[in-house]
Amino acid sequence: MENLDRLALHTMTTKPWDLPTACAKYAAAGITGVGVWRQWLDGRPLAESKTILDDQGLGAVSLVRGGFFPHLNETDHREAHEDNVRALDQAAAIGAPQVVLVCGAKPEIPLVENRKQITEGISNLVNHASKVGVKLAIEPLHPMYADCRSAINTIGQCNDMIDQLGEDWVGIAADVYHIWWDPQLAQEIERAGKRIIGFHVCDWVTPTNDFLNDRGLMGEGCIDNRGIRQLVEATGFDGPIEVEIFSDHHWASDQDEYLEKIITAYRENV
Amino acid sequence: MENLDRLALHTMTTKPWDLPTACAKYAAAGITGVGVWRQWLDGRPLAESKTILDDQGLGAVSLVRGGFFPHLNETDHREAHEDNVRALDQAAAIGAPQVVLVCGAKPEIPLVENRKQITEGISNLVNHASKVGVKLAIEPLHPMYADCRSAINTIGQCNDMIDQLGEDWVGIAADVYHIWWDPQLAQEIERAGKRIIGFHVCDWVTPTNDFLNDRGLMGEGCIDNRGIRQLVEATGFDGPIEVEIFSDHHWASDQDEYLEKIITAYRENV
Repeated sequence: MENLDRLALHTMTTKPWDLPTACAKYAAAGITGVGVWRQWLDGRPLAESKTILDDQGLGAVSLVRGGFFPHLNETDHREAHEDNVRALDQAAAIGAPQVVLVCGAKPEIPLVENRKQITEGISNLVNHASKVGVKLAIEPLHPMYADCRSAINTIGQCNDMIDQLGEDWVGIAADVYHIWWDPQLAQEIERAGKRIIGFHVCDWVTPTNDFLNDRGLMGEGCIDNRGIRQLVEATGFDGPIEVEIFSDHHWASDQDEYLEKIITAYRENV
Repeated sequence: MENLDRLALHTMTTKPWDLPTACAKYAAAGITGVGVWRQWLDGRPLAESKTILDDQGLGAVSLVRGGFFPHLNETDHREAHEDNVRALDQAAAIGAPQVVLVCGAKPEIPLVENRKQITEGISNLVNHASKVGVKLAIEPLHPMYADCRSAINTIGQCNDMIDQLGEDWVGIAADVYHIWWDPQLAQEIERAGKRIIGFHVCDWVTPTNDFLNDRGLMGEGCIDNRGIRQLVEATGFDGPIEVEIFSDHHWASDQDEYLEKIITAYRENV
């Protein structure tokens, strides 16, 4: 994508930068969208975070992240619900149109039960989502996280859930890192259609040395970012393209130079 | 499974033991089946390995492993084919009824092309498989290996391939480690039916600290080994249940005590 109009960065991508720094740097680089991780809202009133974004001409494209629905007892159940309600309120306060859901999983709970609790947990949020005007974006996570981060691992599962939950306030955040390998990717993206409301890019590097923080810049690995973008856009999606990279390697580098590399990688490989 | 009649061990599970040691120990423990990794055949004539198995009253249930079909040039292409022919011959020589295929993947090659090369590679082996009377067991690998170990990641993909390849000499080795998370697992196992010719057990531990060698004993993790066994047996499968665990942790322990733990874990959790 030569044009940067749709480029958005997750604050986690440039983890060393706090919100004011990230916003100033992104804006100076010609970026207009931010995926705001909730930790970046800590320590100041929400209105002040909104002002920091506004002053740089930036818009929050997503709030990251809600979810983590599976629970072992009623206290955890209630706290998970309340935290997700809070996430929806935070998103509304900073003008983010969606909360990205990392659905959660507990290894002590059977897989089927994890999935049932997730569906119920999302269902219980739809009313509040509609009230505050913020969508719930289910992000299927790579199957290597099925034990303890998310029991929702494919676009197909998201489609099955949304068939039940309705699609007015529930959509899908498609992150290439999690879905690139899926043999049913093309058909399930087509089936999802307008349910795709978020699109995240990065890359899978070989070898991957860490389950969490060894993602690559687009072009550093084997993911066909451009091909998946085209699949997603064939559904009519024309929203922001969010760069979400967790990388100890890149975080340890000069973040100004890294930001330049991200923009180049976006232009050449997305 | 209280009864040990169907229990088989992969030589890699007790990696510190060479073939004579492993065979003696397995036999003394009442185990009758061995999944033989090819490295364990090195350094002696095949007939001698066969004698080592025979003398302990053991049968080879599988030869592990062939595959690795994707290639960047014709030399690699030819060498991969020849190595798989050799694997089939080795299996026939030691009386193993199947070669387990880890299909391979190269990050430099588009995913679709990897998958095409795999299908072609297996197709080119069917004739030799039928000639030596050894089946090709496709083992779908966990999607976290889709970049460089196998672009075949679900039972569903195996079924699609076998629809093309025919099922007389091509089947599926279902390893719980790779497939436990799959939301379509039950339906694709049912669809596979008699194509399931191998069943491997172990566990997924939380946290998993290494992509390759941090598997758990059955019961140490979140996989429903018993439930998946029941799904597989509903297809009519009554073959060996192969314990295949790669674990730096367990390999570093006393292997005699470990063998006892494996048997207990099999009895209690499979």
